[in-house]
Amino acid sequence: MSKSSIVSIGNELLNGSGVDTNSAYLSERLLSIGIPVVMVRVVGDDCDAIIGALRAASDEAEIILTTGGLGPTDDDLTRRAISKYCGKELKLDEEALADIENFFAGCGRQMPQRNQMQAYIPEGAQAIKNDIGTAPGIMLSLDSRRASSIQHPASILLFALPGVPAEMKRMFEQSVLPKLVELDGREVVAIRKLKCFGMGESNMAELLGNRMERERNPLVNTTVRDSVITVHIIARDEDMKRANSIAESEQSKIAGILGDIVFAKEDISLAQAVGIRLTELHKTLAVAESCTGGLVGKLLTDVPGSSNYFLCGWVAYSNEAKIRELGIAPELIEKNGAVSEEVAAAMAAGARRKAGADYGIGITGIAGPGGATADKSVGLVYISVAKADAIFVERLVFSGDRDSVRKRAANAALDLLRRNI
Amino acid sequence: MSKSSIVSIGNELLNGSGVDTNSAYLSERLLSIGIPVVMVRVVGDDCDAIIGALRAASDEAEIILTTGGLGPTDDDLTRRAISKYCGKELKLDEEALADIENFFAGCGRQMPQRNQMQAYIPEGAQAIKNDIGTAPGIMLSLDSRRASSIQHPASILLFALPGVPAEMKRMFEQSVLPKLVELDGREVVAIRKLKCFGMGESNMAELLGNRMERERNPLVNTTVRDSVITVHIIARDEDMKRANSIAESEQSKIAGILGDIVFAKEDISLAQAVGIRLTELHKTLAVAESCTGGLVGKLLTDVPGSSNYFLCGWVAYSNEAKIRELGIAPELIEKNGAVSEEVAAAMAAGARRKAGADYGIGITGIAGPGGATADKSVGLVYISVAKADAIFVERLVFSGDRDSVRKRAANAALDLLRRNI
Repeated sequence: MSKSSIVSIGNELLNGSGVDTNSAYLSERLLSIGIPVVMVRVVGDDCDAIIGALRAASDEAEIILTTGGLGPTDDDLTRRAISKYCGKELKLDEEALADIENFFAGCGRQMPQRNQMQAYIPEGAQAIKNDIGTAPGIMLSLDSRRASSIQHPASILLFALPGVPAEMKRMFEQSVLPKLVELDGREVVAIRKLKCFGMGESNMAELLGNRMERERNPLVNTTVRDSVITVHIIARDEDMKRANSIAESEQSKIAGILGDIVFAKEDISLAQAVGIRLTELHKTLAVAESCTGGLVGKLLTDVPGSSNYFLCGWVAYSNEAKIRELGIAPELIEKNGAVSEEVAAAMAAGARRKAGADYGIGITGIAGPGGATADKSVGLVYISVAKADAIFVERLVFSGDRDSVRKRAANAALDLLRRNI
Repeated sequence: MSKSSIVSIGNELLNGSGVDTNSAYLSERLLSIGIPVVMVRVVGDDCDAIIGALRAASDEAEIILTTGGLGPTDDDLTRRAISKYCGKELKLDEEALADIENFFAGCGRQMPQRNQMQAYIPEGAQAIKNDIGTAPGIMLSLDSRRASSIQHPASILLFALPGVPAEMKRMFEQSVLPKLVELDGREVVAIRKLKCFGMGESNMAELLGNRMERERNPLVNTTVRDSVITVHIIARDEDMKRANSIAESEQSKIAGILGDIVFAKEDISLAQAVGIRLTELHKTLAVAESCTGGLVGKLLTDVPGSSNYFLCGWVAYSNEAKIRELGIAPELIEKNGAVSEEVAAAMAAGARRKAGADYGIGITGIAGPGGATADKSVGLVYISVAKADAIFVERLVFSGDRDSVRKRAANAALDLLRRNI
């Protein structure tokens, strides 16, 4: 089984200005074709550091992917580092240069002189086309000790891709993935997921017991983000069909154990799961948000096609907006406070009624850091779902910072809707 | 000058389920006290891989930070790996155990048996308190070859922190940072930033010319996210005052060169910059969004205290909602289409009028992947800002996917407001 190693390049990744999301994307895609990533190294815009990381990566993996450092500025050093690492001079690739010039021409601009450097790649390497940016990628095959022919069994395949995620993803899918799938003799991996909401990770581990043991096939593990738990089921086999069948059988068994906290058997968000149900039932939704400030609307409309069921949202941040836009009685706010069960319910009902929707969501709470009162602490959130014949309200108290409270509150509201559609 | 190296631990980081945001946070914080991060290694939940990463890290840095793998499940292997790496047995830390039991008691629950394992730390190590979660951290001082006393000049300081970002950050600030600041004899680093909107990275590099050369002090580099460019100015000196003065003088010079595309001299978002201006002027804002679906509201209300100037938002996703909620004439939509200059302007004006705000923002566009027509392509977005005596509209065409189009459109709208406050 081939293994891969990723080198992410850029000072922004080592000074806190940027987060390396590319590695997560590449890891998942590589694993899906049976190529596990054994390590990710993040290095700065420093030629020696990049060369060091490439050398270390070639000790542990047959496939190396780099992202970043292919831009047109002086701190883009990946080309030079690869050239030194493999002992091949940089040479102008005329076709790559023409592609860059065409890219600028397509935007109605002339290529700045400095972009020419992007067309230089090590001798013997191939340029990887970039349809949506200026930086071509680099594909290179090397002997694990020295540069060698592409067919050599001990060879290392190196792919250098740009750091811009959209360009990197497109080039990976178009050019790198097909090349990797050609490589033979690999154990394949089937991955299935279960997406869950409404339980802690520890409790889930107790429920799943020895299914989560390390050496087991299928391997089961869990990750959590914004209170959504993803169960990952990873089955290995020499045969893809068998691997799929092992993974699916485990997926069904775990889904049976976890019951209705499972909201999807594929890697979708709560907003997508809700959208699928609403679409199936031809139902519509409106949302009134206070403390989440538009986040529920944002999550719902992250989903292409959400206009089929999402009619309207209100960010009723001020009391005046709650009264004027959602028809909430001023006395209700006066008596109970804006952060209350009653106001959450009235927001949900108001959104539903004003939009003429089948379902309404209402959220009001204290996201912090300010806003707490003697009897209402930061993290207190009321979520509500209104439908034709019922209104549901839940009182929740979240720990964590503003961002975390808001994300978990938004997900809790979407989950309350899911359980009551 | 001490250097640091980060080891991020967790299968979720190598199978695409999670993104390593912790390293970005730690990198920035470490650099701010003059400790550059020379490498980040991301490894899975695999004892040997963690040990290998710790060994490699100790070859290049005096300070090692790990995140992740301190949870209560079988795939949490950081404790065991550190124990093997430093050759010290794991021992129950009674105080840490009491802290974990207290944490559960505080939530009104009994500690599950499996959480006891979190109180085991290598002999000679210190537990790092975790106020908001169950996993204590580990602090350990080692000889660079073998375990040694904390005062040894060749010693390595290792800190193991949980992977949950809120816990990791709190423990880093409370316990790790003060410890590191004590260490002496370091060249200090002063970092200043300029946040910019409205120019490409290449053009900016041409403007800044040799200021961006690699070996220069101060070092200047740029990063870009959602069309916002951050200029990082990093000055080194043995004296903190001098380092600050070098960085600030460069910051002023570059701000002069870049002019009004600079929206802040500190690391804040466009929404924060807009909020600061509105607060200074005691002005208020309302937002009407279509294609961004609540994202502008979310960005504005990410900022604590935004209720002082942000009154109300509408996610007027359907035409009916635009007509009913914002008072847009149906004929205007019929004649020009919902994605048009006219409708964007009417949305901005409608939001302003209905909310009684000083400023209104309107956004309508085609975020994709669907929704394109013969004359309106995916990525076409109209943004508008209405004030008492004027309405501004811009037509923009973004490349990239739905997420990218929406983020850049939201930022462009906030910037249009900034330039017209």
